[in-house]
Amino acid sequence: MRWHRLARGPEADRIRAFAEAVGGPDVPDARLPPGDDAVSFGLEEDEAVVLTSDAYTEGVHFRREWIGWEDVGHRSAAGALSDLAACAARPVGILVSVLLPPELDTSVLSALGRGVGACLEGTEAALLGGDLSSSESGVTLDMVAAGGAAEPVGRNGARPGDELWVTGELGGAGAAVADWTGGLEPEPAARRAYSRPTPRLREALWLRERVDLHAMIDLSDGLATDLRHVAAASDVGAELEEASLPLAQPLQGYGNREQARKIALTGGEDYELLFAAPAGDVGGLRAAFEEAHGVELTRVGTVRREQGVILRAPDGGERPLTLSGFDHFRR
Amino acid sequence: MRWHRLARGPEADRIRAFAEAVGGPDVPDARLPPGDDAVSFGLEEDEAVVLTSDAYTEGVHFRREWIGWEDVGHRSAAGALSDLAACAARPVGILVSVLLPPELDTSVLSALGRGVGACLEGTEAALLGGDLSSSESGVTLDMVAAGGAAEPVGRNGARPGDELWVTGELGGAGAAVADWTGGLEPEPAARRAYSRPTPRLREALWLRERVDLHAMIDLSDGLATDLRHVAAASDVGAELEEASLPLAQPLQGYGNREQARKIALTGGEDYELLFAAPAGDVGGLRAAFEEAHGVELTRVGTVRREQGVILRAPDGGERPLTLSGFDHFRR
Repeated sequence: MRWHRLARGPEADRIRAFAEAVGGPDVPDARLPPGDDAVSFGLEEDEAVVLTSDAYTEGVHFRREWIGWEDVGHRSAAGALSDLAACAARPVGILVSVLLPPELDTSVLSALGRGVGACLEGTEAALLGGDLSSSESGVTLDMVAAGGAAEPVGRNGARPGDELWVTGELGGAGAAVADWTGGLEPEPAARRAYSRPTPRLREALWLRERVDLHAMIDLSDGLATDLRHVAAASDVGAELEEASLPLAQPLQGYGNREQARKIALTGGEDYELLFAAPAGDVGGLRAAFEEAHGVELTRVGTVRREQGVILRAPDGGERPLTLSGFDHFRR
Repeated sequence: MRWHRLARGPEADRIRAFAEAVGGPDVPDARLPPGDDAVSFGLEEDEAVVLTSDAYTEGVHFRREWIGWEDVGHRSAAGALSDLAACAARPVGILVSVLLPPELDTSVLSALGRGVGACLEGTEAALLGGDLSSSESGVTLDMVAAGGAAEPVGRNGARPGDELWVTGELGGAGAAVADWTGGLEPEPAARRAYSRPTPRLREALWLRERVDLHAMIDLSDGLATDLRHVAAASDVGAELEEASLPLAQPLQGYGNREQARKIALTGGEDYELLFAAPAGDVGGLRAAFEEAHGVELTRVGTVRREQGVILRAPDGGERPLTLSGFDHFRR
């Protein structure tokens, strides 16, 4: 843990530029001074530690031609914090490891820090620490999010008959990536969905207080893949209703409806939540949820005893959902 | 957190190869199943969380020509765990983010995992989780170590009159780096000091139980730089006794004594501990420490009220210690 350390020189200048740009609250119940070898913080009574890490690297996860440095900072912090939301954990803060080529100066660190700070805003999460290093080429951020929860929600408790719900809209980030990959400039809403996603931390804590959440996951790999993760961990199957999918606004104008549905099902990085809850428990809370958070809540399907995930068409026909997310090492 | 996840494909194969090679204990008091969005574990009563991260990247921190993949795994885990030792924290485990070019196959992940596993052996630390991603070029490991401590030891409590002690020998890793940089093959002891350092976790806990540790730090940047960190954080100065420095064996054969001392003072990455304790408290424990751990304990200096760090020569003469460690962005 090296942010805030006192030494002078170009490395320390970059560290300060980043930490000052992030801003935000101090470490809660800190047991070590800033800039020590590690960060130490207390939890609330009965809480366990919840930790998750998420790497974000140039050329693989993003390209400089696509988004700016502030977006890179925001986007990478959102990825880690979203995993805390998926467990309905109370966020405490993030550790940020940054690797960047020596020719990038303090202005890049400031921009990355402003983006991280914008993502932390309103979450109560603090910048806990991290590490800064030069790289031979390309920028990499590795984000670790830390939080507390007495009973974190896993992927493994979905039961046959449970309803499946998602927060927000699906496929906005995927629409942007599809445009960039095809050489097009995405429309602003798609661009924003990709570059400025909101980790659903408050939404998850709100739901945990009111609903018996059997299983929850964040949609980082896309609904098709992430639902399969829930089904496999819970040893159940699931049915998605095609007509119910809340397509993101940029997908609604697509002439090719099949393509729009495919992006909504497989486009990762929306960072919405998918959860399973007992039938009938969520419907009555929908209006209050949307009122509290300004985010939709949509029932998209049902948990089944039969293994496998199927997609039910509006005419009642069903087909297996075989679409897959990204594999870093498939060629 | 993605290790252990159940999907099939080349990415999952690599994840499994790594996790199986690491081996080691299960997550203590786990509150989420393996492969969930995050890892969750309980702490002992009164403990606070202690977290630290350390990035290790090809071309900057290591070169493939210098060491093998097992060494890379061992070395990078040691860097993060050593920061826990510096705070006298009880280790719980590590999160490992790995980025590597797609052409590197599962055998590289197995070797990295074996090295990480070798470093964890005997520490009670578990593989908690992490992330795997492809990279455009070069291998990067970002290690986060997590632990617990009721009262973690910081750098900031050294007081005038305190004795300064170090564990082990200094400059072994630095001798290896100096040889490689000069186009030479290091001798085995130097190579081993660099590639297989032992984080002093048990030593730190042993000391914490018996000594009023005013301040402690691990020697990742070299004694000269790390002592300055302690002095700055504690608002004191310090005096090092040149004759007392425990030179690593590879340095003892150096014809150029000045060069040997320079490497012992500035060679980082030995991962020994430097601590400040009340005068007279440690000397009587030295034999028991060396008996328990098979590691030397050496008094190297004294904390002074006057700002600045000085080096005292055997003839009594003093000079300011101006040697510096590595700055990633100085060109």
